[in-house]
Amino acid sequence: RIKASGLKLQLCTNETQATRENFVKKLRAMGFDISVAEVTAPAPAACRLLRERGLRPHLLVHDDLVPEFAEVDKTNPNCVVLGDAAENFTYANLNEAFRLLIGMEKPVLISLGKGRYYKETDGLKLDVGAYMKALEYACDVQAEVVGKPAKRFFESALAELGVPPEQAIMIGDDIVNDVGGAQQCGMRALQVRTGKYRPSDENHPKVKPDAYVNNLAEAVDIILQQL
Amino acid sequence: RIKASGLKLQLCTNETQATRENFVKKLRAMGFDISVAEVTAPAPAACRLLRERGLRPHLLVHDDLVPEFAEVDKTNPNCVVLGDAAENFTYANLNEAFRLLIGMEKPVLISLGKGRYYKETDGLKLDVGAYMKALEYACDVQAEVVGKPAKRFFESALAELGVPPEQAIMIGDDIVNDVGGAQQCGMRALQVRTGKYRPSDENHPKVKPDAYVNNLAEAVDIILQQL
Repeated sequence: RIKASGLKLQLCTNETQATRENFVKKLRAMGFDISVAEVTAPAPAACRLLRERGLRPHLLVHDDLVPEFAEVDKTNPNCVVLGDAAENFTYANLNEAFRLLIGMEKPVLISLGKGRYYKETDGLKLDVGAYMKALEYACDVQAEVVGKPAKRFFESALAELGVPPEQAIMIGDDIVNDVGGAQQCGMRALQVRTGKYRPSDENHPKVKPDAYVNNLAEAVDIILQQL
Repeated sequence: RIKASGLKLQLCTNETQATRENFVKKLRAMGFDISVAEVTAPAPAACRLLRERGLRPHLLVHDDLVPEFAEVDKTNPNCVVLGDAAENFTYANLNEAFRLLIGMEKPVLISLGKGRYYKETDGLKLDVGAYMKALEYACDVQAEVVGKPAKRFFESALAELGVPPEQAIMIGDDIVNDVGGAQQCGMRALQVRTGKYRPSDENHPKVKPDAYVNNLAEAVDIILQQL
Protein backbone atom coordinates (compact mmCIF):
# COMPACT_ATOMS: atom_id res chain seq x y z
CA ARG A 1 0.00 0.00 0.00
CA ILE A 2 2.85 2.41 0.78
CA LYS A 3 4.60 1.64 -2.49
CA ALA A 4 1.32 1.73 -4.45
CA SER A 5 0.63 5.22 -3.07
CA GLY A 6 3.85 6.48 -4.67
CA LEU A 7 5.76 6.89 -1.40
CA LYS A 8 9.31 5.56 -1.27
CA LEU A 9 10.15 2.71 1.07
CA GLN A 10 13.41 1.40 2.51
CA LEU A 11 13.76 -1.41 5.05
CA CYS A 12 16.43 -0.83 7.71
CA THR A 13 17.42 -4.04 9.46
CA ASN A 14 20.12 -5.04 11.92
CA GLU A 15 19.90 -8.64 10.67
CA THR A 16 23.41 -10.12 10.57
CA GLN A 17 22.61 -13.82 10.50
CA ALA A 18 21.67 -13.88 6.80
CA THR A 19 22.54 -12.21 3.52
CA ARG A 20 20.09 -9.59 2.22
CA GLU A 21 19.10 -12.14 -0.45
CA ASN A 22 17.91 -14.64 2.15
CA PHE A 23 16.36 -11.93 4.29
CA VAL A 24 14.31 -10.74 1.31
CA LYS A 25 13.31 -14.31 0.45
CA LYS A 26 11.91 -14.75 3.96
CA LEU A 27 9.95 -11.49 3.79
CA ARG A 28 8.62 -12.23 0.30
CA ALA A 29 7.40 -15.60 1.58
CA MET A 30 5.45 -13.60 4.21
CA GLY A 31 3.82 -11.56 1.44
CA PHE A 32 5.97 -8.41 1.46
CA ASP A 33 6.76 -7.21 -2.06
CA ILE A 34 10.37 -6.03 -1.61
CA SER A 35 13.70 -6.36 -3.37
CA VAL A 36 17.32 -6.50 -2.19
CA ALA A 37 17.86 -2.87 -3.26
CA GLU A 38 15.19 -1.80 -0.79
CA VAL A 39 17.08 -3.22 2.18
CA THR A 40 19.68 -1.33 4.21
CA ALA A 41 21.65 -3.78 6.36
CA PRO A 42 24.82 -3.66 8.48
CA ALA A 43 27.01 -6.00 6.40
CA PRO A 44 26.89 -3.98 3.15
CA ALA A 45 27.32 -0.79 5.20
CA ALA A 46 30.43 -2.36 6.74
CA CYS A 47 31.72 -3.36 3.29
CA ARG A 48 31.41 0.28 2.15
CA LEU A 49 33.32 1.43 5.24
CA LEU A 50 36.05 -1.20 4.70
CA ARG A 51 36.47 -0.16 1.07
CA GLU A 52 36.63 3.56 1.90
CA ARG A 53 39.33 3.05 4.49
CA GLY A 54 41.35 0.28 2.83
CA LEU A 55 40.59 -2.14 5.67
CA ARG A 56 40.98 -5.91 5.33
CA PRO A 57 38.74 -7.66 7.86
CA HIS A 58 39.05 -10.75 9.94
CA LEU A 59 35.41 -11.88 10.15
CA LEU A 60 33.79 -13.17 13.30
CA VAL A 61 30.27 -13.48 11.93
CA HIS A 62 27.53 -16.02 11.25
CA ASP A 63 28.39 -18.50 8.47
CA ASP A 64 25.31 -17.40 6.55
CA LEU A 65 26.53 -13.80 6.44
CA VAL A 66 29.95 -14.53 4.93
CA PRO A 67 28.77 -14.22 1.28
CA GLU A 68 28.09 -10.48 1.87
CA PHE A 69 31.86 -10.08 2.23
CA ALA A 70 32.74 -12.08 -0.89
CA GLU A 71 34.25 -9.09 -2.71
CA VAL A 72 36.33 -7.90 0.24
CA ASP A 73 40.06 -8.60 0.53
CA LYS A 74 40.47 -10.60 3.73
CA THR A 75 44.19 -11.40 3.49
CA ASN A 76 46.53 -10.17 6.21
CA PRO A 77 43.71 -8.55 8.25
CA ASN A 78 44.07 -5.06 9.74
CA CYS A 79 40.68 -4.96 11.49
CA VAL A 80 38.06 -7.26 13.00
CA VAL A 81 34.41 -7.27 11.90
CA LEU A 82 32.08 -8.66 14.53
CA GLY A 83 28.51 -9.79 13.83
CA ASP A 84 26.02 -11.94 15.66
CA ALA A 85 28.12 -15.04 15.13
CA ALA A 86 25.90 -17.28 17.30
CA GLU A 87 27.46 -20.78 17.37
CA ASN A 88 30.66 -19.25 15.99
CA PHE A 89 31.12 -17.41 19.31
CA THR A 90 33.44 -20.12 20.60
CA TYR A 91 36.25 -19.62 23.12
CA ALA A 92 38.78 -20.32 20.36
CA ASN A 93 37.22 -17.86 17.87
CA LEU A 94 36.96 -15.09 20.47
CA ASN A 95 40.60 -15.57 21.48
CA GLU A 96 41.61 -15.48 17.82
CA ALA A 97 39.77 -12.19 17.18
CA PHE A 98 41.22 -10.80 20.40
CA ARG A 99 44.82 -11.75 19.49
CA LEU A 100 44.50 -10.12 16.10
CA LEU A 101 43.16 -6.90 17.65
CA ILE A 102 45.69 -6.68 20.47
CA GLY A 103 48.48 -7.29 17.97
CA MET A 104 47.51 -4.24 15.88
CA GLU A 105 49.28 -0.97 16.46
CA LYS A 106 45.87 0.74 16.54
CA PRO A 107 43.16 -1.93 16.91
CA VAL A 108 40.08 -1.39 14.70
CA LEU A 109 36.93 -3.22 15.77
CA ILE A 110 33.82 -2.85 13.61
CA SER A 111 30.62 -4.21 15.13
CA LEU A 112 27.49 -4.97 13.08
CA GLY A 113 25.16 -3.67 15.78
CA LYS A 114 25.26 -3.47 19.56
CA GLY A 115 22.17 -5.43 20.63
CA ARG A 116 22.26 -6.90 24.12
CA TYR A 117 20.21 -10.05 23.51
CA TYR A 118 17.38 -11.49 21.47
CA LYS A 119 14.82 -14.22 21.76
CA GLU A 120 14.73 -17.45 19.77
CA THR A 121 12.37 -20.37 20.05
CA ASP A 122 14.79 -22.13 22.42
CA GLY A 123 15.31 -19.09 24.65
CA LEU A 124 17.22 -15.83 25.03
CA LYS A 125 20.64 -15.50 23.39
CA LEU A 126 23.46 -13.03 23.95
CA ASP A 127 23.64 -10.66 20.98
CA VAL A 128 26.68 -9.14 19.26
CA GLY A 129 26.80 -6.17 21.66
CA ALA A 130 27.80 -8.37 24.58
CA TYR A 131 30.77 -9.83 22.67
CA MET A 132 31.64 -6.36 21.41
CA LYS A 133 31.91 -5.19 25.04
CA ALA A 134 34.16 -8.16 25.88
CA LEU A 135 36.60 -7.31 23.08
CA GLU A 136 36.41 -3.56 23.78
CA TYR A 137 37.38 -4.16 27.40
CA ALA A 138 40.14 -6.67 26.66
CA CYS A 139 41.76 -4.46 23.99
CA ASP A 140 40.90 -1.08 25.53
CA VAL A 141 39.31 0.10 22.27
CA GLN A 142 35.94 1.51 21.28
CA ALA A 143 34.14 -0.41 18.55
CA GLU A 144 32.73 1.42 15.55
CA VAL A 145 29.11 0.33 15.35
CA VAL A 146 27.55 -0.12 11.93
CA GLY A 147 23.76 -0.59 11.82
CA LYS A 148 20.97 0.94 13.87
CA PRO A 149 21.14 3.26 15.84
CA ALA A 150 24.26 4.69 14.10
CA LYS A 151 23.49 8.01 12.44
CA ARG A 152 25.55 7.06 9.42
CA PHE A 153 23.39 3.98 8.88
CA PHE A 154 20.15 5.97 8.73
CA GLU A 155 21.84 8.51 6.49
CA SER A 156 22.78 5.82 4.00
CA ALA A 157 19.16 4.57 3.97
CA LEU A 158 18.02 8.15 3.28
CA ALA A 159 20.61 8.45 0.51
CA GLU A 160 19.21 5.27 -1.07
CA LEU A 161 15.77 6.90 -1.01
CA GLY A 162 17.06 10.28 -2.13
CA VAL A 163 14.97 11.96 0.57
CA PRO A 164 15.98 14.48 3.27
CA PRO A 165 15.37 13.34 6.89
CA GLU A 166 12.52 15.79 7.49
CA GLN A 167 10.53 14.14 4.69
CA ALA A 168 11.01 10.62 6.06
CA ILE A 169 9.26 8.63 8.77
CA MET A 170 10.79 5.66 10.56
CA ILE A 171 8.49 2.91 11.82
CA GLY A 172 9.97 0.47 14.29
CA ASP A 173 9.46 -1.58 17.43
CA ASP A 174 12.77 -0.79 19.16
CA ILE A 175 12.60 2.40 21.21
CA VAL A 176 16.37 3.04 21.19
CA ASN A 177 17.68 1.52 17.97
CA ASP A 178 14.76 2.40 15.68
CA VAL A 179 13.02 5.42 17.19
CA GLY A 180 15.96 7.08 18.95
CA GLY A 181 18.37 6.48 16.06
CA ALA A 182 16.01 7.90 13.43
CA GLN A 183 15.16 10.95 15.52
CA GLN A 184 18.85 11.73 16.09
CA CYS A 185 19.11 11.82 12.34
CA GLY A 186 16.30 14.38 12.00
CA MET A 187 13.51 11.97 11.03
CA ARG A 188 10.18 11.55 12.74
CA ALA A 189 9.60 8.08 14.20
CA LEU A 190 6.59 5.94 15.09
CA GLN A 191 6.84 3.11 17.56
CA VAL A 192 4.64 0.08 16.86
CA ARG A 193 3.20 -1.66 19.91
CA THR A 194 4.27 -5.09 18.61
CA GLY A 195 7.44 -7.20 18.57
CA LYS A 196 10.11 -5.85 20.92
CA TYR A 197 7.80 -3.13 22.23
CA ARG A 198 7.28 -3.15 26.01
CA PRO A 199 4.76 -0.92 27.86
CA SER A 200 7.70 0.44 29.91
CA ASP A 201 9.09 1.93 26.67
CA GLU A 202 6.43 4.64 27.00
CA ASN A 203 8.32 5.97 30.05
CA HIS A 204 11.76 5.73 28.43
CA PRO A 205 14.07 8.28 30.11
CA LYS A 206 15.64 9.46 26.85
CA VAL A 207 13.52 8.63 23.81
CA LYS A 208 9.95 9.72 23.02
CA PRO A 209 8.42 8.61 19.69
CA ASP A 210 6.50 11.17 17.64
CA ALA A 211 3.53 8.82 17.92
CA TYR A 212 2.54 5.26 18.84
CA VAL A 213 0.63 2.88 16.58
CA ASN A 214 -0.79 -0.50 17.50
CA ASN A 215 0.72 -2.28 14.52
CA LEU A 216 2.28 -1.83 11.10
CA ALA A 217 -1.09 -1.75 9.30
CA GLU A 218 -2.26 1.13 11.50
CA ALA A 219 0.98 3.01 10.75
CA VAL A 220 0.27 2.63 7.04
CA ASP A 221 -3.35 3.85 7.51
CA ILE A 222 -2.21 6.97 9.32
CA ILE A 223 0.55 7.78 6.84
CA LEU A 224 -1.73 7.34 3.84
CA GLN A 225 -4.40 9.56 5.47
CA GLN A 226 -1.91 12.46 5.52
CA LEU A 227 -1.31 12.39 1.76
CA ARG B 1 63.77 -15.87 54.64
CA ILE B 2 60.77 -13.64 55.38
CA LYS B 3 59.14 -16.28 57.53
CA ALA B 4 62.44 -17.18 59.23
CA SER B 5 62.88 -13.50 60.19
CA GLY B 6 59.63 -13.64 62.17
CA LEU B 7 57.63 -11.49 59.72
CA LYS B 8 54.17 -12.69 58.76
CA LEU B 9 53.45 -13.67 55.18
CA GLN B 10 50.27 -14.07 53.16
CA LEU B 11 50.02 -14.85 49.45
CA CYS B 12 47.28 -12.97 47.58
CA THR B 13 46.46 -14.56 44.26
CA ASN B 14 43.79 -14.08 41.63
CA GLU B 15 44.24 -17.68 40.51
CA THR B 16 40.84 -19.13 39.62
CA GLN B 17 41.87 -22.10 37.51
CA ALA B 18 42.87 -24.26 40.45
CA THR B 19 41.97 -24.92 44.08
CA ARG B 20 44.27 -23.48 46.73
CA GLU B 21 45.47 -27.03 47.38
CA ASN B 22 46.75 -27.42 43.84
CA PHE B 23 48.10 -23.89 43.76
CA VAL B 24 50.12 -24.57 46.92
CA LYS B 25 51.36 -27.89 45.53
CA LYS B 26 52.74 -26.09 42.49
CA LEU B 27 54.48 -23.45 44.60
CA ARG B 28 55.92 -26.04 47.00
CA ALA B 29 57.33 -27.90 43.99
CA MET B 30 59.11 -24.63 43.11
CA GLY B 31 60.65 -24.52 46.59
CA PHE B 32 58.29 -22.12 48.39
CA ASP B 33 57.50 -23.28 51.92
CA ILE B 34 53.81 -22.29 52.17
CA SER B 35 50.54 -23.79 53.32
CA VAL B 36 46.92 -23.42 52.19
CA ALA B 37 46.16 -21.18 55.19
CA GLU B 38 48.73 -18.69 53.90
CA VAL B 39 46.86 -18.20 50.61
CA THR B 40 44.13 -15.62 50.04
CA ALA B 41 42.28 -16.43 46.80
CA PRO B 42 39.06 -15.27 45.10
CA ALA B 43 37.08 -18.52 45.35
CA PRO B 44 37.14 -18.83 49.16
CA ALA B 45 36.46 -15.08 49.39
CA ALA B 46 33.41 -15.60 47.16
CA CYS B 47 32.27 -18.53 49.33
CA ARG B 48 32.38 -16.27 52.40
CA LEU B 49 30.34 -13.64 50.58
CA LEU B 50 27.78 -16.22 49.38
CA ARG B 51 27.38 -17.56 52.91
CA GLU B 52 26.99 -14.11 54.44
CA ARG B 53 24.25 -13.14 51.99
CA GLY B 54 22.44 -16.46 51.65
CA LEU B 55 23.29 -16.68 47.94
CA ARG B 56 23.14 -19.93 45.97
CA PRO B 57 25.44 -19.69 42.95
CA HIS B 58 25.27 -20.95 39.42
CA LEU B 59 28.98 -21.52 38.68
CA LEU B 60 30.61 -20.58 35.39
CA VAL B 61 34.17 -21.42 36.40
CA HIS B 62 37.07 -23.68 35.49
CA ASP B 63 36.43 -27.38 36.23
CA ASP B 64 39.48 -27.46 38.50
CA LEU B 65 38.03 -24.71 40.70
CA VAL B 66 34.69 -26.40 41.39
CA PRO B 67 35.92 -28.26 44.55
CA GLU B 68 36.36 -24.86 46.30
CA PHE B 69 32.56 -24.55 46.18
CA ALA B 70 31.87 -28.07 47.48
CA GLU B 71 30.23 -26.83 50.70
CA VAL B 72 28.01 -24.26 48.98
CA ASP B 73 24.31 -24.89 48.24
CA LYS B 74 23.99 -24.61 44.47
CA THR B 75 20.32 -25.62 44.12
CA ASN B 76 17.83 -23.15 42.61
CA PRO B 77 20.52 -20.49 42.00
CA ASN B 78 19.92 -16.84 42.86
CA CYS B 79 23.27 -15.50 41.60
CA VAL B 80 25.99 -16.28 39.07
CA VAL B 81 29.65 -16.72 40.01
CA LEU B 82 32.02 -16.14 37.12
CA GLY B 83 35.66 -17.23 37.10
CA ASP B 84 38.26 -17.72 34.41
CA ALA B 85 36.36 -20.66 32.95
CA ALA B 86 38.67 -21.01 29.91
CA GLU B 87 37.34 -23.88 27.74
CA ASN B 88 34.07 -23.67 29.69
CA PHE B 89 33.44 -20.24 28.11
CA THR B 90 31.26 -21.78 25.41
CA TYR B 91 28.38 -20.06 23.61
CA ALA B 92 25.94 -22.40 25.36
CA ASN B 93 27.40 -21.82 28.85
CA LEU B 94 27.42 -18.05 28.42
CA ASN B 95 23.80 -18.05 27.25
CA GLU B 96 22.86 -20.22 30.22
CA ALA B 97 24.51 -17.87 32.74
CA PHE B 98 22.90 -14.91 30.94
CA ARG B 99 19.40 -16.43 31.03
CA LEU B 100 19.67 -17.13 34.74
CA LEU B 101 20.77 -13.55 35.44
CA ILE B 102 18.20 -11.83 33.24
CA GLY B 103 15.50 -13.99 34.83
CA MET B 104 16.32 -12.72 38.35
CA GLU B 105 14.33 -9.86 39.80
CA LYS B 106 17.63 -8.25 40.81
CA PRO B 107 20.50 -9.99 38.99
CA VAL B 108 23.57 -10.68 41.14
CA LEU B 109 26.81 -11.33 39.26
CA ILE B 110 29.93 -12.12 41.28
CA SER B 111 33.18 -12.11 39.33
CA LEU B 112 36.38 -13.75 40.56
CA GLY B 113 38.58 -10.96 39.22
CA LYS B 114 38.40 -8.57 36.30
CA GLY B 115 41.59 -9.30 34.36
CA ARG B 116 41.51 -8.41 30.66
CA TYR B 117 43.77 -11.16 29.32
CA TYR B 118 46.72 -13.37 30.17
CA LYS B 119 49.45 -15.22 28.36
CA GLU B 120 49.78 -18.98 28.03
CA THR B 121 52.32 -21.01 26.13
CA ASP B 122 49.98 -21.16 23.13
CA GLY B 123 49.21 -17.43 23.14
CA LEU B 124 47.08 -14.71 24.73
CA LYS B 125 43.69 -15.64 26.17
CA LEU B 126 40.70 -13.50 27.13
CA ASP B 127 40.44 -13.37 30.93
CA VAL B 128 37.35 -13.37 33.15
CA GLY B 129 36.98 -9.56 32.99
CA ALA B 130 36.06 -9.66 29.30
CA TYR B 131 33.24 -12.14 29.91
CA MET B 132 32.17 -10.16 32.97
CA LYS B 133 31.76 -7.09 30.74
CA ALA B 134 29.68 -9.09 28.25
CA LEU B 135 27.25 -10.23 30.96
CA GLU B 136 27.21 -6.80 32.63
CA TYR B 137 26.19 -5.19 29.34
CA ALA B 138 23.61 -7.81 28.39
CA CYS B 139 21.92 -7.72 31.82
CA ASP B 140 22.52 -4.05 32.61
CA VAL B 141 24.11 -4.95 35.95
CA GLN B 142 27.40 -4.21 37.66
CA ALA B 143 29.37 -7.25 38.76
CA GLU B 144 30.72 -7.49 42.28
CA VAL B 145 34.40 -8.24 41.88
CA VAL B 146 36.06 -10.54 44.38
CA GLY B 147 39.86 -10.78 44.26
CA LYS B 148 42.53 -8.16 43.60
CA PRO B 149 42.18 -5.14 43.37
CA ALA B 150 39.02 -5.21 45.54
CA LYS B 151 39.62 -3.47 48.86
CA ARG B 152 37.68 -6.17 50.71
CA PHE B 153 40.03 -8.82 49.34
CA PHE B 154 43.14 -7.12 50.70
CA GLU B 155 41.35 -6.49 53.99
CA SER B 156 40.62 -10.18 54.38
CA ALA B 157 44.29 -10.98 53.75
CA LEU B 158 45.24 -8.45 56.44
CA ALA B 159 42.67 -10.00 58.78
CA GLU B 160 44.31 -13.41 58.23
CA LEU B 161 47.64 -11.86 59.21
CA GLY B 162 46.15 -9.86 62.08
CA VAL B 163 48.10 -6.78 60.95
CA PRO B 164 46.90 -3.22 60.22
CA PRO B 165 47.51 -1.98 56.65
CA GLU B 166 50.19 0.54 57.64
CA GLN B 167 52.33 -2.31 58.99
CA ALA B 168 52.04 -4.39 55.81
CA ILE B 169 53.86 -4.29 52.46
CA MET B 170 52.46 -5.73 49.25
CA ILE B 171 54.90 -7.06 46.66
CA GLY B 172 53.53 -7.66 43.19
CA ASP B 173 54.12 -7.43 39.46
CA ASP B 174 50.73 -5.96 38.47
CA ILE B 175 50.66 -2.16 38.69
CA VAL B 176 46.85 -1.88 39.01
CA ASN B 177 45.70 -5.10 40.69
CA ASP B 178 48.61 -5.56 43.11
CA VAL B 179 50.13 -2.14 43.70
CA GLY B 180 47.05 0.05 43.19
CA GLY B 181 44.75 -2.26 45.12
CA ALA B 182 47.06 -2.54 48.13
CA GLN B 183 47.71 1.21 48.27
CA GLN B 184 43.97 1.97 48.21
CA CYS B 185 43.77 -0.20 51.27
CA GLY B 186 46.43 1.83 53.11
CA MET B 187 49.37 -0.52 52.53
CA ARG B 188 52.67 0.34 50.96
CA ALA B 189 53.42 -1.55 47.75
CA LEU B 190 56.55 -2.58 45.84
CA GLN B 191 56.44 -3.42 42.16
CA VAL B 192 58.81 -6.15 41.00
CA ARG B 193 60.30 -5.66 37.53
CA THR B 194 59.47 -9.25 36.54
CA GLY B 195 56.43 -11.15 35.25
CA LYS B 196 53.64 -8.85 34.10
CA TYR B 197 55.77 -5.74 34.71
CA ARG B 198 56.21 -3.50 31.66
CA PRO B 199 58.56 -0.46 31.51
CA SER B 200 55.52 1.65 30.60
CA ASP B 201 54.08 0.88 34.07
CA GLU B 202 56.57 3.41 35.44
CA ASN B 203 54.56 6.16 33.73
CA HIS B 204 51.16 4.82 34.84
CA PRO B 205 48.67 7.72 34.94
CA LYS B 206 47.10 6.68 38.25
CA VAL B 207 49.32 4.32 40.25
CA LYS B 208 52.81 4.94 41.59
CA PRO B 209 54.48 2.18 43.65
CA ASP B 210 56.27 3.15 46.85
CA ALA B 211 59.38 1.58 45.31
CA TYR B 212 60.57 -0.68 42.50
CA VAL B 213 62.65 -3.82 42.95
CA ASN B 214 64.27 -5.89 40.24
CA ASN B 215 62.93 -9.19 41.58
CA LEU B 216 61.41 -10.92 44.56
CA ALA B 217 64.79 -11.73 46.12
CA GLU B 218 65.74 -8.04 46.07
CA ALA B 219 62.41 -7.17 47.71
CA VAL B 220 63.22 -9.60 50.52
CA ASP B 221 66.76 -8.15 50.91
CA ILE B 222 65.38 -4.62 51.27
CA ILE B 223 62.64 -5.60 53.70
CA LEU B 224 65.01 -7.57 55.91
CA GLN B 225 67.49 -4.66 55.96
CA GLN B 226 64.83 -2.45 57.57
CA LEU B 227 64.34 -4.75 60.57
